Amino acid sequence: MKVNVGKRILSANEEYALKNRQFLTERKILCLNMISSPGSGKTTILVRTINALKNEITIGVIEGDIQTDLDAEKIRATEAPVVQIETKGACHLSAAQVNTALNRLPTDNLDLIIIENVGNLVCPSAFELGETGKIAVLSVAEGDDKPVKYPAIFARSKVLLINKTDLLKVGAAVDFDIERAKADARKLNKGIEIFATSAKTGEGMAGWHNWLKKQVKNLQGA
Amino acid sequence: MKVNVGKRILSANEEYALKNRQFLTERKILCLNMISSPGSGKTTILVRTINALKNEITIGVIEGDIQTDLDAEKIRATEAPVVQIETKGACHLSAAQVNTALNRLPTDNLDLIIIENVGNLVCPSAFELGETGKIAVLSVAEGDDKPVKYPAIFARSKVLLINKTDLLKVGAAVDFDIERAKADARKLNKGIEIFATSAKTGEGMAGWHNWLKKQVKNLQGA
Repeated sequence: MKVNVGKRILSANEEYALKNRQFLTERKILCLNMISSPGSGKTTILVRTINALKNEITIGVIEGDIQTDLDAEKIRATEAPVVQIETKGACHLSAAQVNTALNRLPTDNLDLIIIENVGNLVCPSAFELGETGKIAVLSVAEGDDKPVKYPAIFARSKVLLINKTDLLKVGAAVDFDIERAKADARKLNKGIEIFATSAKTGEGMAGWHNWLKKQVKNLQGA
Repeated sequence: MKVNVGKRILSANEEYALKNRQFLTERKILCLNMISSPGSGKTTILVRTINALKNEITIGVIEGDIQTDLDAEKIRATEAPVVQIETKGACHLSAAQVNTALNRLPTDNLDLIIIENVGNLVCPSAFELGETGKIAVLSVAEGDDKPVKYPAIFARSKVLLINKTDLLKVGAAVDFDIERAKADARKLNKGIEIFATSAKTGEGMAGWHNWLKKQVKNLQGA
């Protein structure tokens, strides 16, 4: 019974995902669905990325949160357009919610839309939103065993950002074997691009920014 | 439609939760359902707690993981009895799974069972397992805004462990306002007990251990 229920919900979601994908493809907008545990640094990554790239590509944001618009406020401070979705308890964004948000963004002027999903390493990976690709974020404070313990999101993402690497340095505060995490992620997903970043200090962010610029360029055929 | 589906699943779950609660009450076993994001330190808390209390109270563990039995292996090293549940993708433990696990634990000899739920700050809080109470764990690396952003689990827990406090000290690696997190959690849940802990160094763990001993004593009427 559970399986049937799952299928029905997914297929309604898939209809909206398809609409969103068409909408984005027509406008040549790259759309990335960013997924992680709570507190991995997604919003800080977004703020730094928008500020670093604001003269080169125009970025809009869809902010998913269970409650509050604290994250959207931080994005607004960058002057990038942002639409907030409060899921009111739901554990992931749906394609229908993203559809509404897309219609509220100034999409005529955007090269890239980043969707910051609800903080949850499990459920959001099962719901397509019509995105071009998924971005997984893993904070080193969470431990290097996460790719083997929560494989779905690592298997399905185009990029993995191993974030908060500044914590590896200060007095070796955190034990995290970056090579182990990379190897485990690549066992699940041979082509995944991996960048080790500190959105707080900026270290390692250039690789991620260059990847983004390249994707936008490829999509727009420039 | 979604709401009806949710209700049907919950009510099947509630039947098993009731069975588990009766089973535990008859045996005067305290049972705690530990919930957090991935990588907040639940397993390390368990290992240290079992080792600290092993001469005073007997503890059994039910380990919930989406995949792998890495955490159960760490518990086995303490010699505490442990039953592993692999959810194979599901984002929370169900009361039926816990029912099976309870029948596999040596419950005649246990004072306390701790259920380590799947790493997910959202979904597990909605599924009763028959536990005596919920324990929320929040790592300081996740940020002090989590009680307002993910209120459900903080509203429903008997105890909040603010863990990895060692990260607040090493070169002030992490910004986390413990008083803000405590105040926000208490706004949601007036009676919540809060302990700031480092399961890695042991700092602050005594308060949590004393709370556990007191609960076991009260339950057993000794």
